[in-house]
Amino acid sequence: MARINSHYQKLTAGYLFPEIARRVAAFQEDNPKTSLIRLGIGDVTRPLPPAVVQALHEGVDRMSRRETFKGYGPEQGYEFLREAIADNDYRQRGVEVSPDEIFVSDGSKCDSGNIQEIFDADVKIAVTDPVYPVYVDTNVMAGRTGAADDKGRYAGLCYMPCTEERGFLPEIPREPVDLAYLCFPNNPTGGVASKEQLEKWVAYARSNDAIILFDAAYEGFITDPSIPHSIYEVEGARDVAIEFRSFSKTAGFTGTRCAFTVIPSSLAGKDDKGNSVSVRSLWNRRHSTKFNGASYPIQFGAAAVYSPEGKAQVREAIAYYMENARAIREGLSSAGFTVYGGVNAPYIWLKTPTGTSSWEFFDSLLTNVGVVGTPGSGFGPSGEGYFRLSAFAERADVGEAIERIRAKYSS
Amino acid sequence: MARINSHYQKLTAGYLFPEIARRVAAFQEDNPKTSLIRLGIGDVTRPLPPAVVQALHEGVDRMSRRETFKGYGPEQGYEFLREAIADNDYRQRGVEVSPDEIFVSDGSKCDSGNIQEIFDADVKIAVTDPVYPVYVDTNVMAGRTGAADDKGRYAGLCYMPCTEERGFLPEIPREPVDLAYLCFPNNPTGGVASKEQLEKWVAYARSNDAIILFDAAYEGFITDPSIPHSIYEVEGARDVAIEFRSFSKTAGFTGTRCAFTVIPSSLAGKDDKGNSVSVRSLWNRRHSTKFNGASYPIQFGAAAVYSPEGKAQVREAIAYYMENARAIREGLSSAGFTVYGGVNAPYIWLKTPTGTSSWEFFDSLLTNVGVVGTPGSGFGPSGEGYFRLSAFAERADVGEAIERIRAKYSS
Repeated sequence: MARINSHYQKLTAGYLFPEIARRVAAFQEDNPKTSLIRLGIGDVTRPLPPAVVQALHEGVDRMSRRETFKGYGPEQGYEFLREAIADNDYRQRGVEVSPDEIFVSDGSKCDSGNIQEIFDADVKIAVTDPVYPVYVDTNVMAGRTGAADDKGRYAGLCYMPCTEERGFLPEIPREPVDLAYLCFPNNPTGGVASKEQLEKWVAYARSNDAIILFDAAYEGFITDPSIPHSIYEVEGARDVAIEFRSFSKTAGFTGTRCAFTVIPSSLAGKDDKGNSVSVRSLWNRRHSTKFNGASYPIQFGAAAVYSPEGKAQVREAIAYYMENARAIREGLSSAGFTVYGGVNAPYIWLKTPTGTSSWEFFDSLLTNVGVVGTPGSGFGPSGEGYFRLSAFAERADVGEAIERIRAKYSS
Repeated sequence: MARINSHYQKLTAGYLFPEIARRVAAFQEDNPKTSLIRLGIGDVTRPLPPAVVQALHEGVDRMSRRETFKGYGPEQGYEFLREAIADNDYRQRGVEVSPDEIFVSDGSKCDSGNIQEIFDADVKIAVTDPVYPVYVDTNVMAGRTGAADDKGRYAGLCYMPCTEERGFLPEIPREPVDLAYLCFPNNPTGGVASKEQLEKWVAYARSNDAIILFDAAYEGFITDPSIPHSIYEVEGARDVAIEFRSFSKTAGFTGTRCAFTVIPSSLAGKDDKGNSVSVRSLWNRRHSTKFNGASYPIQFGAAAVYSPEGKAQVREAIAYYMENARAIREGLSSAGFTVYGGVNAPYIWLKTPTGTSSWEFFDSLLTNVGVVGTPGSGFGPSGEGYFRLSAFAERADVGEAIERIRAKYSS
């Protein structure tokens, strides 16, 4: 039989969210009458903004007429969308990113999962702990790690613990690394990095020839004006950073699928012979060879996010979720929980009751009050003893969840 | 600087179609008045079927209301679409494929490009020559080959020449291989494999523990009822074959993006220790980790391909393109060209005039008559001296292209 990629067998467990789905389905089957409240997976609940809906219809209509029909589009995304991104997400914030440096895709999970392919099999990878599992798992699958230890840490990866004492921020690695995955506002802790902190990272990357893989999927939720939305707000970051962005959480595209990645033209890696190679050109080759562009009607809809109506509607949706975040944070706090996040991010990171593991608390919340959250240990060993609640929910459900939790757990 | 994946540097040239686009753009800039006729890239020109358009609108409307809004969907695709595929594409042809064995995606290029990831770095790969470049390039990028020789053949790959004498069919490899990429109806030659020929392949795979990667993206164009549409029409193929299918060419989805891959549950590979491992479970892990499901409105639209109206409209579009194929085949033949394909496939494979290379003929057609085709050598060294014309075009353009070619080249 054909030999399989045995690195897959190092993966410690099912991917976190399918495992949650499995437990929830099993509980629901046994308890069909319990009305579950889902604050787990971090999935939006509000419908698409009307401006986007209108544009999606228009995009579909264009596919129905020969004169406006679109076949294969540019793998990199349509110019109209890349222009709108460059202008609205960057130029208007004083950041120079050219449309040619933007690669539109069908999702940030794909992009942040695939990006490692264009680097050598032996590059040294740094990840935070806790971490979005995709960064780790895709490197495990690519054979960049050894086996996992009993805490779930893979040999060969450089883990940067984000502990309560450090305000859940990663310490810059003491060993040299080639690629560092950072996510701010952070999933799962809800923490943010100040401009000064990002400046230290950029300085580290510049002096150590490292590349920062910056996941800014949640930048839309930043409320503090001093917090950078893009790594490129930091001087010199264009030479050392790739940035991932998504329409998923801002414009409600988790089921509609559109995202983009920025790779500045000045970002370089080196080849076997030590020659400098444009990272953008490598990603362009990957993107053209293994991807055929995001759906035209979807890109047409995504562009409407940047219309005046679209912007106002997205702001309103974000405000709605952030009011949920406030309610969860304050409600849990008044129930005696220690809570973090939820100010510049849609995630609340809470400490589980003393002596209760993350998965125990998951099962406790599920079975006692019918609330689904995400166990912190699913994001890495330093997440043990923590639990993530998501602000992506309907207001009434959030209120009900808090009531149930207070009634059951208030100390 | 971070070391790049140096295997990318083995890639001999830009991916074929971007290179064509570059030459066409340069010509068009110098000759803005020439009206080009594009029979090159194999891209559909007819608008989406009305039944699909209607369903896409309905899918978008569902995203506009809270009660019907969809966030993250199953990575494997919605049940409604997988059920429709299993029933219409398989059960109704007497082939058993379960919805759980179907993985919906945003494109066959992605699937056939990504599939190699779940196999070992050292598996032996067989490809036809000429070949759809994605199969080769993705294995080069993954490090499964050495450098290319001066004909563009990569060391380490097993090439199966598809020559005129062999009716453009690949000979079963004499050396043992682990994975064999087959595409029938074939892109680029337009050739098909009979059931008997596929039976030989399945027998080979079964007795050599090989896996067949069967690209059936063009099955909708088969006109001869004796030709299998699916590899699974062959007894025993479920144990040895993966099948790729797409809505791109049948329902006009090249810009809309939806496809699927079938991996039977009985298909196994072996791990380092020689244990048998389900290939389906590996792909499921990859799909869940690196992909977030195809867009909901798009899947909703794709399902309408299987409605009675959708089926009739797809049949009509295919008939339209196949009438083009007939016109091209007969027109070129009467102009003195030797032509193949175009009967069970939307591609015509013609011999270039004696002494004219494929790229020379490309440039000749482009500059003399403003017709864009695809040089056969772009698909591999055995494609040298051949040229691909696509039937995906408007009827009037096909007529005009044939007239221009006859006027210029008739012998």
